[in-house]
Amino acid sequence: MTAPADARIEPLARGVWGVVATPFTGDDRAIDADSLARLVSFYETVGATGLTVLGVFGEAASLTAAERMDVLRVAAENSSLPIVAGVTSLSTAPAIAEIENAHATLGDRLAAVMVQANSPRADAVIEHLQRIHAATGVPIVLQDYPKASGVAISTDAVIAVVQACRFVSAVKAEAPPTAVAIARLTAKLEVSVFGGLGGQGLLDELAAGSAGAMTGFSYPEALVACVDASLAGDADAAREALLPYLPLINFEQQPGIALAIRKELFRRRGLFADAAVRPPAVAFPAELSTIADAHLERAGRLQVVR
Amino acid sequence: MTAPADARIEPLARGVWGVVATPFTGDDRAIDADSLARLVSFYETVGATGLTVLGVFGEAASLTAAERMDVLRVAAENSSLPIVAGVTSLSTAPAIAEIENAHATLGDRLAAVMVQANSPRADAVIEHLQRIHAATGVPIVLQDYPKASGVAISTDAVIAVVQACRFVSAVKAEAPPTAVAIARLTAKLEVSVFGGLGGQGLLDELAAGSAGAMTGFSYPEALVACVDASLAGDADAAREALLPYLPLINFEQQPGIALAIRKELFRRRGLFADAAVRPPAVAFPAELSTIADAHLERAGRLQVVR
Amino acid sequence: MTAPADARIEPLARGVWGVVATPFTGDDRAIDADSLARLVSFYETVGATGLTVLGVFGEAASLTAAERMDVLRVAAENSSLPIVAGVTSLSTAPAIAEIENAHATLGDRLAAVMVQANSPRADAVIEHLQRIHAATGVPIVLQDYPKASGVAISTDAVIAVVQACRFVSAVKAEAPPTAVAIARLTAKLEVSVFGGLGGQGLLDELAAGSAGAMTGFSYPEALVACVDASLAGDADAAREALLPYLPLINFEQQPGIALAIRKELFRRRGLFADAAVRPPAVAFPAELSTIADAHLERAGRLQVVR
Amino acid sequence: MTAPADARIEPLARGVWGVVATPFTGDDRAIDADSLARLVSFYETVGATGLTVLGVFGEAASLTAAERMDVLRVAAENSSLPIVAGVTSLSTAPAIAEIENAHATLGDRLAAVMVQANSPRADAVIEHLQRIHAATGVPIVLQDYPKASGVAISTDAVIAVVQACRFVSAVKAEAPPTAVAIARLTAKLEVSVFGGLGGQGLLDELAAGSAGAMTGFSYPEALVACVDASLAGDADAAREALLPYLPLINFEQQPGIALAIRKELFRRRGLFADAAVRPPAVAFPAELSTIADAHLERAGRLQVVR
Repeated sequence: MTAPADARIEPLARGVWGVVATPFTGDDRAIDADSLARLVSFYETVGATGLTVLGVFGEAASLTAAERMDVLRVAAENSSLPIVAGVTSLSTAPAIAEIENAHATLGDRLAAVMVQANSPRADAVIEHLQRIHAATGVPIVLQDYPKASGVAISTDAVIAVVQACRFVSAVKAEAPPTAVAIARLTAKLEVSVFGGLGGQGLLDELAAGSAGAMTGFSYPEALVACVDASLAGDADAAREALLPYLPLINFEQQPGIALAIRKELFRRRGLFADAAVRPPAVAFPAELSTIADAHLERAGRLQVVR
Repeated sequence: MTAPADARIEPLARGVWGVVATPFTGDDRAIDADSLARLVSFYETVGATGLTVLGVFGEAASLTAAERMDVLRVAAENSSLPIVAGVTSLSTAPAIAEIENAHATLGDRLAAVMVQANSPRADAVIEHLQRIHAATGVPIVLQDYPKASGVAISTDAVIAVVQACRFVSAVKAEAPPTAVAIARLTAKLEVSVFGGLGGQGLLDELAAGSAGAMTGFSYPEALVACVDASLAGDADAAREALLPYLPLINFEQQPGIALAIRKELFRRRGLFADAAVRPPAVAFPAELSTIADAHLERAGRLQVVR
Repeated sequence: MTAPADARIEPLARGVWGVVATPFTGDDRAIDADSLARLVSFYETVGATGLTVLGVFGEAASLTAAERMDVLRVAAENSSLPIVAGVTSLSTAPAIAEIENAHATLGDRLAAVMVQANSPRADAVIEHLQRIHAATGVPIVLQDYPKASGVAISTDAVIAVVQACRFVSAVKAEAPPTAVAIARLTAKLEVSVFGGLGGQGLLDELAAGSAGAMTGFSYPEALVACVDASLAGDADAAREALLPYLPLINFEQQPGIALAIRKELFRRRGLFADAAVRPPAVAFPAELSTIADAHLERAGRLQVVR
Repeated sequence: MTAPADARIEPLARGVWGVVATPFTGDDRAIDADSLARLVSFYETVGATGLTVLGVFGEAASLTAAERMDVLRVAAENSSLPIVAGVTSLSTAPAIAEIENAHATLGDRLAAVMVQANSPRADAVIEHLQRIHAATGVPIVLQDYPKASGVAISTDAVIAVVQACRFVSAVKAEAPPTAVAIARLTAKLEVSVFGGLGGQGLLDELAAGSAGAMTGFSYPEALVACVDASLAGDADAAREALLPYLPLINFEQQPGIALAIRKELFRRRGLFADAAVRPPAVAFPAELSTIADAHLERAGRLQVVR
């Protein structure tokens, strides 16, 4: 899985890596394997390049170690896509334990693990990643997501980390303004750089040189159509594919309730049986029900050109 | 200007209240009166309902008291629109001093002053507003903008404040998720409730019952077309008017650089002579220049239907 | 371990519950069982009421599940004190998994588990605690520590939670101003309320009615002498016991480096073989070495009256 | 007032610069000139080196421009001490306007103005300070106080700013851990470096090389005795002078209510007629009244050795 000592590992494949939400069911919000199977299968049907499982929007922090392995197993069994497994811990030892579990569960299906930048200091992040890679041998996607990690790292420090860590195959750039960061990262690095954040800045991120999107959205087929067109060199078609969905993307990305909205929309699309989130995450607000209906009604009329 | 003792003051007029950016010129970034005149005149030409001057995006906090009055004067002299004057201070005495200056400068042109919620406690905000109104007699737009104020007030507390203060004519709801807040506010209050935040959630805010937008955007004509259609009851037309501009709205609303982008776009449109911001605000990043060009080129091809 | 259905569980014993730092050794910062044994034994020698293991200052978030059980085992085997086990996760399912591991490791030695308030909403915290208690049956210490949890809960909400959860045996109040919170909590609740934060506000917290301190300090004997005197009704003696150590307490509590300072002082006292912290926590700054020497030299001259 | 072109301006005098709280009176919380006169006179009596007026704890942000000048005038007329005037604005033009007012009011009594670091970027702060000094010619105390400014600047950047600005006569270091910062600053800079934060870390800051304290405390005579002894080379006497007041210092420094406590203690000492703060600052909590009594009773028994 690793590259020769001095060579950069192969960049993670371009396209859309669908961030997988974890569906729950029942009073105790157990994992709903059927809904999860529908979602990963749907991602494959619409042409996603791969899956990103156990990310922040997969509510990984609210799952037990056993549940995390269950989620990975269901995802692997119900699609043939490569999988990036998210790592929740910001500290080295528990991160390694998480990765060992993921590797044991997924084997060759594990394309990479996604590790958060855990310090503003490049040397601290480098030591963190090197220890992880020495212990596990798995390629790493470096995630810069200050809203989740609480860590603000400069773009220069991200560049230094990636240059020092040849086993990093991608960066997930989620520190706004992302288009600026992606332009700087892609000018200096050979790895793939993905945007996230629900696709809200996808067009600009692609224009800045991103390799695609690693994110979730209630209509991932729109992200795929947009990214495929862009990677094929047709910026106008990319825009046309995304444009009708942008109001829904903005609706979905509302701070504090984005996860609840997306799960509710998956429910209304028939992908999820239940929109439940695990507390203390907040539930879908009833005030938005009619607005969600209108968004879905419009989306239903659209025909995504692929 | 005030209503009878027990009656609610007349709600602020619906529509688009254009937030006015303050253009600067020269090495010392002096106020550029010519560019400012062009901008307010343009707002009137495209059909804005009124102007909001000295807001956060007017960089009011970086202006002296004398400069603030200059800005108000230029805005009043170069348009016939009613003006809402923003108040920078979170404390009562300096807020009153700001309002007295604004009132002395604008007289009857002053439709209201915009005062920020300065405490999470409703009783503290009520005392703040009542003292301000007792001293100045000017109608108040209550702004809930935690990113600028550092104050997180609940929607219930906002409702309590407005119910206790009959001289409040509008609320500017800029605490995400805004569509939820606006739905709750408009269900309980008779005042106008405006969204802001660059129009990123405008369609949902209108669907939730907002009276329009009180914000800035490099193509305000799109906001006007959208809001006018919505207030006329045509949600489809509202969506059609805004849709082609949504990528640009999202581009412009990038955290940390939104003001710099908007000023640069005003410069490229010929409204501003210079895109300068006053430090410590950050300047337009060169990495986005080509992307900005592409946005402008597309916008130039659009024909806003009004 | 639990009380009859309608009765409040017995309050956690008053006194000093020593928060146990986790010592590391070697290049890979493995757990140093010998140093850990020395520390817990020392806590017992100086008269601590109990141990709090796996708290924030035990670096629990940087330990694997297996390491956490090792730490609990070593603590239990090297003292006869009751143990409160800290819970790192803010989410219900992984919190239950942590508690099951702790319970399996400690059995009757587990006096309670310490669970963080995970939401500003009382009802969400109540559901969280009730599910945890239903699954595990272990008494709960509710910790209000916004700096670690990121959650700001009001004192009124804490009171509501405790009143609804009769299996809560104590509150650890670490949301400043703690003396105000403790005065309000002890006026309304029958449970024990402990201060923390390194003892910086210990005298005021005791005056406000606290049951003692649940915290760490390089000279825990001073905390014990202070709390014992206070609980015996002698406020002057309590003050005299703590006063000579207050400069060191303030030195130790410096934001961002408090853990590193405490471990370095434990090292210089001969309790720990190594002062290492697990990254991304920052190490002891060399600039403070001479100042630390002076503090230790003075502390060495003191004779704690007990 | 300024030094020759290439030379560093004379460092600000060592000792205690008493931060002056602004007393209010009556229902509208007008400035209470009599109480203010008593306070500044008291500072002179106890041997303060100078006064710091209009700082954060002077509630400068809640004063009008006219009130700020009143406060400066009363402070100057009721003591013969040199005055450092705080600057509230983080932006250049309004900062210059504030300084011009202070200079016009105080003339030669103005020893320096205290300007906050307004950006994490050294070059931005340098431009800010250079423009201010070019416009006003007044020496500058650079304040690094992230809790008030919202700006996190590294110690290296502070050093770079001071090295580039020879008109800076002092740094006020209030970014914890302050002892580390002060050790680094004094190793590289010739200017005076003061601690603040109510004196909570004063002993360590002096040990790290600080020039004294620029802060407030209800018993400033204790700060003076401590700093004087330290500057005379007697660290033991410095410690003895401060030690009995440390519990009160910690009581006073409680986050969120420190200002209210200090004003209440000034009131109980007879310096202030009223403890009022201007909202949205919170008032002294009744829960602490008895604890405050006990602190004052003990302090009254102390005899400060000078």
